[in-house]
Amino acid sequence: MSHISRDATDTLDIHRLRADTPGTQNRNHLNNAGASLMPSPVIEAVTRYVRREGEIGGYEAAAEANAALEATYDSVASLVNCSRDEIAIAENATIAWQRAFYSLSFKPGDRILTASAEFAANYVAFLQVAKRTGATVEVIPNDASGVLDPHALEAMLDDRVRLIAITWIPTNGGLINPAAAVGRIARRNRILYLLDACQAAGQMPIDVAALGCDMLTATGRKFLRAPRGTGFLYIRQSLLETIEPAMIDLYGAHWIAPDRYELRPDARRFETWEKNYSVRLGLRAAVDYALEIGLDKIEQRCRRLSSRLREGLNDTKAVSVHDLGTQFASIISFTVADRPSQDVMTHLTNKGINVSVSPPSSTLIDAFTRRLPPVVRASPHYYNTEAEIDSFLEAIADISA
Amino acid sequence: MSHISRDATDTLDIHRLRADTPGTQNRNHLNNAGASLMPSPVIEAVTRYVRREGEIGGYEAAAEANAALEATYDSVASLVNCSRDEIAIAENATIAWQRAFYSLSFKPGDRILTASAEFAANYVAFLQVAKRTGATVEVIPNDASGVLDPHALEAMLDDRVRLIAITWIPTNGGLINPAAAVGRIARRNRILYLLDACQAAGQMPIDVAALGCDMLTATGRKFLRAPRGTGFLYIRQSLLETIEPAMIDLYGAHWIAPDRYELRPDARRFETWEKNYSVRLGLRAAVDYALEIGLDKIEQRCRRLSSRLREGLNDTKAVSVHDLGTQFASIISFTVADRPSQDVMTHLTNKGINVSVSPPSSTLIDAFTRRLPPVVRASPHYYNTEAEIDSFLEAIADISA
Repeated sequence: MSHISRDATDTLDIHRLRADTPGTQNRNHLNNAGASLMPSPVIEAVTRYVRREGEIGGYEAAAEANAALEATYDSVASLVNCSRDEIAIAENATIAWQRAFYSLSFKPGDRILTASAEFAANYVAFLQVAKRTGATVEVIPNDASGVLDPHALEAMLDDRVRLIAITWIPTNGGLINPAAAVGRIARRNRILYLLDACQAAGQMPIDVAALGCDMLTATGRKFLRAPRGTGFLYIRQSLLETIEPAMIDLYGAHWIAPDRYELRPDARRFETWEKNYSVRLGLRAAVDYALEIGLDKIEQRCRRLSSRLREGLNDTKAVSVHDLGTQFASIISFTVADRPSQDVMTHLTNKGINVSVSPPSSTLIDAFTRRLPPVVRASPHYYNTEAEIDSFLEAIADISA
Repeated sequence: MSHISRDATDTLDIHRLRADTPGTQNRNHLNNAGASLMPSPVIEAVTRYVRREGEIGGYEAAAEANAALEATYDSVASLVNCSRDEIAIAENATIAWQRAFYSLSFKPGDRILTASAEFAANYVAFLQVAKRTGATVEVIPNDASGVLDPHALEAMLDDRVRLIAITWIPTNGGLINPAAAVGRIARRNRILYLLDACQAAGQMPIDVAALGCDMLTATGRKFLRAPRGTGFLYIRQSLLETIEPAMIDLYGAHWIAPDRYELRPDARRFETWEKNYSVRLGLRAAVDYALEIGLDKIEQRCRRLSSRLREGLNDTKAVSVHDLGTQFASIISFTVADRPSQDVMTHLTNKGINVSVSPPSSTLIDAFTRRLPPVVRASPHYYNTEAEIDSFLEAIADISA
């Protein structure tokens, strides 16, 4: 790691950040790719608002908090570098992604290109739309290191490619797909580009202009440290004006005459009128918290901790690390010889260490290709400590001896 | 009101129920058709769980609460008298309704029959699907009292009627449509029947068998007193097996081979994997709370309070009550001569009285037909008191003099 990035990381006050995070007192939480520990300002934003609804009523609390609720759009827009009118806030990342993907139209022979480690939620949707419309789903080949190969993508292109839809960082490992290189190709060839940034949001800077994507979706609960029940969709202004959402209600579409409706001009045409306002305030608090720390610093600290963890596992007898690529996100997937991953997780849970298990069905194409069993997934965040990484490694050494 | 119903009502311990409801100390809350005041067990269920997520992690808290989370399906099934496998829990009623409605297929000439006071959210969806498929949307005539006329419905039927989709109790007044009579006609003629029960849930008993509906949707936040961010879909088992959801993810559909998925056998095929567990526990607490009191008693008390309010308004100079029908739900919509409804609401808000304003665009067909302006909507619940109704009436008398 370079001198510059070390300096930046060192400016993080880990002690203060952990004091903000009640869960660090109870657990060695290495399950941030599942759901991060929320910081106190997020927990407080949600619970305070729910209590306020109880004190004065739901509509009345929403009216009172209107400015803060509106500011959520500004915060999310800052996070991904777009206009507030290009953001729809959703109940989760899947709903955000579905509202984007299912609003696109496909005809027989249209091609949908995706990545080999695409998340199951997206892939079954591709299969459904393919069955329904006669479009095809094709997997972009990886290079020798297992990363999506932009040259291979370019070689696949023709007039029938209607959509490139990939996951930036898959759910089952440290792989980082070259999202911006894909974006340059998509733009040059005027192909729609939908990027699933669930594991990237909150872990690294996101700039939709640099990425060149037309649509980007993310969840709140992972590295962003927001409450469950939050996600968002970025959709480029010039695109959203040409897309009618697959489903509408009176919020996304104004009922202007008995036989006519008019879509909202902004990305909120993909939202419903009914909203859970408490978690939106939690999302805003989480985004502001991340922006205040700085996504560059967060990324550097995540890299440092995840490298320590990955290198430690690589040095541990009987452990196989399964991550693809040459540059890694803060997700490490591994197996221990002769130990089912669920047992490894239980062993860790008993020691107060939180991880999760990623089953083959989460990323079926990749798991089939590599014959992957269920893998243990460890995913540190900036608020973890070197000592926590080391005690995780000790716990693994205990059972891999 | 009969002697029997008075007895039943008198067994409600209003003092205790109000002690359970922090908001009753601060407001005269007559906006239960908007969002009810949550009782303490609901507020506690949500906030305690969010804190627990902060203490041990989101996945870890969900694992710990698994039994309680599963029991939510039993509670909701008890509320509407169906099997737990026929319930999908949704992020709100609109998402529940959309997931049902948009999963149906329509061809040119298919007819969708709806009610004149249908909610805008549903109506714009009808219009979108009509535009997309060539189906038509037709309004079932009302009888002289303004209630959907079952005889008129029967007279409209032919082989092209694909769906009857109505709102049981509209958002803009006390009208109760004859949902069970419609159900008998739908069943006799083997026509799909989708019932929007948003204002009914928590205000009166719901029995999907007696209603004869194939699908029923409701929100948590209204008379059910659940948190925002909750809703549900009931879908009859025999129907759900024949319907592929309009959108799927890895929870509703298992990815079983690179080119194949298999839908879940139960109603949860309409859900996504990502969920906000805290509000589900709040929904469960709210449903159990209502069931414990008894929906019969709740209905009787709502009738008594809303009759007092309606009669008081009818006796107030310069006030026009706009409710249709002969039997009324606990929603009273009215206007005050020469006073914009928004001003009336502001006047009430300043006195600590919560109501809402229902704009013509919420129920456009009905508002056009009756030339309705925005109407003030007052909606008492069982925890309101006779004294609160009377002080509301005094506040209205003040400005209508």
